[in-house]
Amino acid sequence: MEPIDIELLKQLCGIFAPSGNESALTKYLIEYVETQQDNWKTKPELIYGEEFQDCLILKFGEPTTAIFAHLDSIGFTVRYENQLVPIGGPEVESGDLLVGHDAMGPIECKIKDEDGHLFYDFGRGIESGTDLVYKCDFRETEEYFQSCYIDNRLGVYNALKVAETLENGLIIFSCWEEHGGGTVSFLCKWMYEKYKVKQALISDITWITDGVTHGQGVVVSLRDSSIPRREYVDKIIALAEASGVPYQIEVERSGGSDGREIQQSQYPIDWCFVGAPEDYVHTPNELVHKADITAMVTLYKYLMNNL
Amino acid sequence: MEPIDIELLKQLCGIFAPSGNESALTKYLIEYVETQQDNWKTKPELIYGEEFQDCLILKFGEPTTAIFAHLDSIGFTVRYENQLVPIGGPEVESGDLLVGHDAMGPIECKIKDEDGHLFYDFGRGIESGTDLVYKCDFRETEEYFQSCYIDNRLGVYNALKVAETLENGLIIFSCWEEHGGGTVSFLCKWMYEKYKVKQALISDITWITDGVTHGQGVVVSLRDSSIPRREYVDKIIALAEASGVPYQIEVERSGGSDGREIQQSQYPIDWCFVGAPEDYVHTPNELVHKADITAMVTLYKYLMNNL
Amino acid sequence: MEPIDIELLKQLCGIFAPSGNESALTKYLIEYVETQQDNWKTKPELIYGEEFQDCLILKFGEPTTAIFAHLDSIGFTVRYENQLVPIGGPEVESGDLLVGHDAMGPIECKIKDEDGHLFYDFGRGIESGTDLVYKCDFRETEEYFQSCYIDNRLGVYNALKVAETLENGLIIFSCWEEHGGGTVSFLCKWMYEKYKVKQALISDITWITDGVTHGQGVVVSLRDSSIPRREYVDKIIALAEASGVPYQIEVERSGGSDGREIQQSQYPIDWCFVGAPEDYVHTPNELVHKADITAMVTLYKYLMNNL
Repeated sequence: MEPIDIELLKQLCGIFAPSGNESALTKYLIEYVETQQDNWKTKPELIYGEEFQDCLILKFGEPTTAIFAHLDSIGFTVRYENQLVPIGGPEVESGDLLVGHDAMGPIECKIKDEDGHLFYDFGRGIESGTDLVYKCDFRETEEYFQSCYIDNRLGVYNALKVAETLENGLIIFSCWEEHGGGTVSFLCKWMYEKYKVKQALISDITWITDGVTHGQGVVVSLRDSSIPRREYVDKIIALAEASGVPYQIEVERSGGSDGREIQQSQYPIDWCFVGAPEDYVHTPNELVHKADITAMVTLYKYLMNNL
Repeated sequence: MEPIDIELLKQLCGIFAPSGNESALTKYLIEYVETQQDNWKTKPELIYGEEFQDCLILKFGEPTTAIFAHLDSIGFTVRYENQLVPIGGPEVESGDLLVGHDAMGPIECKIKDEDGHLFYDFGRGIESGTDLVYKCDFRETEEYFQSCYIDNRLGVYNALKVAETLENGLIIFSCWEEHGGGTVSFLCKWMYEKYKVKQALISDITWITDGVTHGQGVVVSLRDSSIPRREYVDKIIALAEASGVPYQIEVERSGGSDGREIQQSQYPIDWCFVGAPEDYVHTPNELVHKADITAMVTLYKYLMNNL
Repeated sequence: MEPIDIELLKQLCGIFAPSGNESALTKYLIEYVETQQDNWKTKPELIYGEEFQDCLILKFGEPTTAIFAHLDSIGFTVRYENQLVPIGGPEVESGDLLVGHDAMGPIECKIKDEDGHLFYDFGRGIESGTDLVYKCDFRETEEYFQSCYIDNRLGVYNALKVAETLENGLIIFSCWEEHGGGTVSFLCKWMYEKYKVKQALISDITWITDGVTHGQGVVVSLRDSSIPRREYVDKIIALAEASGVPYQIEVERSGGSDGREIQQSQYPIDWCFVGAPEDYVHTPNELVHKADITAMVTLYKYLMNNL
């Protein structure tokens, strides 16, 4: 069983990349791939630039399946005075630490929640429009990792681990997932028109619920607020079963992922959400079981070889 | 006046095809068309396969207008324990009968609604992720048909009846309409890029309201939650007037159809909803007047010839 | 400082063009451009017709940036009896005057709001499906203009003023913005596929809030319910700063524009909202400061030259 690269996961969780403002993470990944790819089984083609906004694609061999991992995180934008407006859907508790940067320098402040209205508490005013994110406090116990932004830096981590041995496939790092989407549609267009790729896996994080628990394996989702095509999902489940990797079935009414945008794209692309579950979603204390991370990476490797 | 093919309508209402899981109905229609087309005025080209997911297209002659009829129905997915989550927007009453199938065999169970939380009542557990639909109890009186899934098997029926004499046009059977859509966008892409078809009719079912009543004819909708382009709708109404077929005008604030997805597609395609009205929408007891069915089929034939 | 063409703005505010029913304004603009373009620095190519529904595009030189100005306004559709349903989100006060036209002739009636249910008060019944809009009462004081439909006839006005000296760029008049959109997606497709235009400015009207006030300049929005890409918005702000034109920064949680639809299109097109602020939004009394109009036109000219 493959060890978890704690340093990589920890670094990813600490990079500033709220929705719409992901470029620091894009640059980190380009550098990471450029320095690591010599150790990989197959060297990917790196595809990025202004035609892809802040997205990044790794192309391995002859792709028939794409892994989507969103780069962006939830966060906050400074409004006027000391007001904050959310980016995506943060679950705020007064006292949570936020960090960022404006023309006057670095920022580390506390958040206050007064009846759902959000404010920052800082020694000076912060420029309107400044983005803030949770301060990263990465914690490890014997069985768990805990940090802000496990969602979705773990999805990104998973994709990078799969990359090490991947021979054929696309790894697509998307943006804006936490706040309305907007890149998956052109990424679908690109991958379908260029390579006729019709199969997608969503490398993202889901929730602990009454049917999904810590340490029971990676989650294969049959539905959330969107319903993927049954024929494709059944194929994934049959492969998960054959793989021997621990997995759990999810059936939810709410929640969403890049899968939703894939479904609404103008291409007949099937998608299925496959990812580890976490607790304390969208707080600075997202909690994930190590065994579920290992299962996630292992199942993705199997799926990318057999789908 | 053309007789109603009760057997066909009844069969259609009983086929299992909740959103995302429509393939049984697709297969039924392919077989139906293949056995019936020799009796039709024009033999259509059948277009389907993995580039169309579970959709089916019939192409007649040189098309300039497309009929959209969605295949899917509302229903339920089994969550954990005995919980159910809705597919689309069913109007549930405790005691309604549901049917489906899992690895352990066929299922027929009752639904329980406890303060909006849905449960099944069955002698054994049902596998998580299993889709269930209303059990079909097709009823006929002198003036009415009553069944689950009049919405939208009557829209499908209408398209099949129009097919019998159609010389030029597209009939497009779409999926997922009841639950977020997802196929109309690639169907629009296909039909516009391949045939420059810019006119669509939505063959679907609408509601009895204080302005739309049973037996007064097929409904032409001026708007629901979406507003179609006035110039096109005015053309349809002028043709409806000229046709002599009984029709009613609908103006609503809410509700939606495949028209919404056509409007948001990346193609300048006009759409108009034209369909019979029903009562007891999204229950097992959807009620439609026979005269409105006849008016629907007759007006569609006229429109497809004159639009 | 350039004078404001009051007559043009007044005329624009009085033209009937609710969402889905914009063709009168499209025709007005085509005629306006055809008669005015000889006085313009560059003669644009006029692009319109059935492939563009009721939209109109002016193409100047070699475009790299597009101005989007939506033509449509909020309004009302007559339902059954004396009921009205809204087009977009009007802020109604009983007694507001509405105008329109049906087969029986011209209409001028009063609106009644009874607990959020809307009715008209008129001497005769009005045909179901008839669209009504606010009656235009254009008012001028030393510092302000006040009228219905400043939103978005001022955005249209701005585009026409920029057109006078524009050498390279697209001016795109879109439809349906107030009610779900539906044209921006095909307009994006056209402009990206034909000219690789990846930069957009949204010429529209925003709100007076606790951070945006009358007379303080044109508003550059960092976000509303959608978040544009930070890198692009930062570029706009740097140019606004360099231009010397008075401008204000906006940061909101709600609200939206054609920018939302651009972001969700299948093309990597950046967008930024730049427009004057108004008070009494979506009423017959929208109020805008003259200095903010001048700032808007001046900044657009600068941006179109320097972006």
